[in-house]
Amino acid sequence: MGDLLADLADAVDKSGILTGNDIGPRYTDTRGHGPAGAPACVMRPTSTAQVSAILKLCHDAGRPVVPQGGMTGLVGGGTPNDGDVVLSLERMNAIEEIDPVGRTMIAEAGVVLETAHGVAEESGFVLPIDLGARGSATLGGLISTNAGGNRVIRYGMTRQSVLGLEAVLADGTVLTSMNRMLKNNAGYDLKQLFIGSEGTLGLVTRCVLRLQPKPLTTSTAFVGINDFESVPAFLALLDNKLGGGLGAFEVMWSEYYNFVRDRCPTLKPPLSPEYAYYVVTDALGSDPDGDKDRFDAILEMAHTQGLIQDGVVAQSDKERDELWAIREGAGEGFRTIAPIFTYDVSMPITAMDEFASRSMADIEKEFPNAITLILGHLGDGNLHAVVAVGDGSDTAHRKVNDILYGIIRDLGGSVSAEHGIGIEKRDYLDWSRTDAEVSVMRMLKQTLDPKGILNPGKVI
Amino acid sequence: MGDLLADLADAVDKSGILTGNDIGPRYTDTRGHGPAGAPACVMRPTSTAQVSAILKLCHDAGRPVVPQGGMTGLVGGGTPNDGDVVLSLERMNAIEEIDPVGRTMIAEAGVVLETAHGVAEESGFVLPIDLGARGSATLGGLISTNAGGNRVIRYGMTRQSVLGLEAVLADGTVLTSMNRMLKNNAGYDLKQLFIGSEGTLGLVTRCVLRLQPKPLTTSTAFVGINDFESVPAFLALLDNKLGGGLGAFEVMWSEYYNFVRDRCPTLKPPLSPEYAYYVVTDALGSDPDGDKDRFDAILEMAHTQGLIQDGVVAQSDKERDELWAIREGAGEGFRTIAPIFTYDVSMPITAMDEFASRSMADIEKEFPNAITLILGHLGDGNLHAVVAVGDGSDTAHRKVNDILYGIIRDLGGSVSAEHGIGIEKRDYLDWSRTDAEVSVMRMLKQTLDPKGILNPGKVI
Repeated sequence: MGDLLADLADAVDKSGILTGNDIGPRYTDTRGHGPAGAPACVMRPTSTAQVSAILKLCHDAGRPVVPQGGMTGLVGGGTPNDGDVVLSLERMNAIEEIDPVGRTMIAEAGVVLETAHGVAEESGFVLPIDLGARGSATLGGLISTNAGGNRVIRYGMTRQSVLGLEAVLADGTVLTSMNRMLKNNAGYDLKQLFIGSEGTLGLVTRCVLRLQPKPLTTSTAFVGINDFESVPAFLALLDNKLGGGLGAFEVMWSEYYNFVRDRCPTLKPPLSPEYAYYVVTDALGSDPDGDKDRFDAILEMAHTQGLIQDGVVAQSDKERDELWAIREGAGEGFRTIAPIFTYDVSMPITAMDEFASRSMADIEKEFPNAITLILGHLGDGNLHAVVAVGDGSDTAHRKVNDILYGIIRDLGGSVSAEHGIGIEKRDYLDWSRTDAEVSVMRMLKQTLDPKGILNPGKVI
Repeated sequence: MGDLLADLADAVDKSGILTGNDIGPRYTDTRGHGPAGAPACVMRPTSTAQVSAILKLCHDAGRPVVPQGGMTGLVGGGTPNDGDVVLSLERMNAIEEIDPVGRTMIAEAGVVLETAHGVAEESGFVLPIDLGARGSATLGGLISTNAGGNRVIRYGMTRQSVLGLEAVLADGTVLTSMNRMLKNNAGYDLKQLFIGSEGTLGLVTRCVLRLQPKPLTTSTAFVGINDFESVPAFLALLDNKLGGGLGAFEVMWSEYYNFVRDRCPTLKPPLSPEYAYYVVTDALGSDPDGDKDRFDAILEMAHTQGLIQDGVVAQSDKERDELWAIREGAGEGFRTIAPIFTYDVSMPITAMDEFASRSMADIEKEFPNAITLILGHLGDGNLHAVVAVGDGSDTAHRKVNDILYGIIRDLGGSVSAEHGIGIEKRDYLDWSRTDAEVSVMRMLKQTLDPKGILNPGKVI
């Protein structure tokens, strides 16, 4: 290892390698998705050529490399083991180009999402990838995990915003696929290999992202609904009448809404607690003169058709933020019931109510005082669950996992909708994927990383 | 071979295998993208299990297998060589399920696109993959080539409409990835391997497709523009003001428009011939009361801003069809200048005018009487060229290829935007892709099809 460390130090400038006590908490703070070991060193390259040199050295030495972005992942994808080489892209943070005609952004992998948002906005566009961790999540991490978020229903997952990328393979080969066009059918679409594979097939160093026109209006409603069938029917009505403008559609089961009422004193739940389901929805529009009236008319239609029973429409940005805080800002409540286990699963929409009721019932059978809260991105088939059973042990965690993922398996769903597999869900991968699928994943891993040095132990 | 043929016959019913004179022209008519050899037999399986059995037999025997869909491809992707086993999916043509809540269609690969359109429409949705060959192109072929078309600007390439698929690998392994959710980050997204790889990595047998809400209105305009900079500026204005409703944006250089005026007596060019560029554009809307006025107002704004100089708006479906026929129905004119060479290339939008002028000039230098017509999907970065040089020989074809693809290479574009590589563009693949990219493509091919039996000689 002495030789490798010396060679690695030679491959970068003085600030490009950290060892021993210089390794700050940033590189081992896994936000509970650990435990992290002590890495041999942290490499902080400033160029693709340096990433290539580092990987070549580690490949020759058979040394595991753990790539890190903003360290905001939720499944331990960046968690190092003892002796690993951590490769942080944090210093590759240049936005290289904005093409306002082709509407593309070219950037390095370490750019923080919020920075990219700002640059896109200054140019009159939006970069539609968005999620709560925008202040620290990096483009490379978002691509490597194919991140989702609240705008997926309008703009798709991160995969859909990536036109091209550059990745470095395990042996240091630089694979530059910086396509800038919406259409390119010249051979296999190699970039797909590196989107969502969590750094196990190659390290993303640069990317070409698709920008979108900035919406001119946002209309937000928060509604109460009595029966589950009306929830997707309301979604369909909005989608039909908004003509591509539906920007978010988030559902909360009543248990969650009432939890917020009871446990989140700083939030302002706008509706009475009697409904079975609550939905917050955004319409993104381009007609400042007419969008508000049209949105109100659609809601009125939904009410007349009996799809929604009550609702409020935000009259200001402040009111919009308050409505969205019901969905996104329940942290203060969660802290009162800690420890909690959180889930990110997907399933056909028609199976969602069964998932929710079976989850609550089955967990309560095992843990009579359990609190199970269900909410999520209904339009994308993606729900989140927050579960507290008064016991944060691994044994309890595994029991709840087995219950929830067992239901997901029965319903033909996925154990990871948007967070990825990392280390946390690795044991459950084959609950959502067939043996043949896992076997082909292993073939790809073996082909692209025959020595298994890239983020070992993650995903598969 | 006798043994293999006998075994193949045993794997299917009596109509499942064709040999000798029973092999109809359907299986060798490559529409000029040949020449086709004489296949040993044509297999017409009716189930994934039969496809698996056929591939296993051919794999064991090392016999090449050429998959065929509707045989409407434009690069010879389905062209067989002497002695190949043709595998036609034509009898796997069931639509298995429509889920109106999850908005998905599950279908077999041999379903003809137009049939799928009809079933989607009956259920109140659209399947947004669309192109001229809709009456014969099959879902499996569209997926295998990642087909484009006129609605890409609104709904993306075929890739974007595929939620899940089932593919059979070279050795007969059935890989079922019939995901129905918009979000699934459980491990590698294997379906991407089979989308756009033209049957060289596996055979698509079934798929889950995403349906979209049916637009309630379509507004169509045909406009004339004086300078190239105004073309993408007009596109941006439409995109900003239509809020996700831009349905098509097709540009024609004046040489094409005037060719239509001169050589297509059944078409009705609506504008005078003086403009440098012509655009036909669709807006898809959801507000029958207001969409027309809004569309007219946007066009008026474009005119006031000097982005467009003249234009007409279709007042009926008949007028819309007539306007679109200028873009799509010039076959009668092309026949008067046959033989023609056709091209499908992509490049950054800012490079398009240079591509067009250099193409015309460089081809004319080599062939003084050449006719070079440029048109295409500007918003997607995708142009088509139609070239007639009064000589249909392979030598002339290659000369024109070298000129056009050379310009594309200079401009950082792609030799195939939407048609694929097949046999026709194989020699030019590395004009658009780096050595490292081609090398990773070969690694994938070697991993998934080590004996090279799947559509050999195509793509790479």
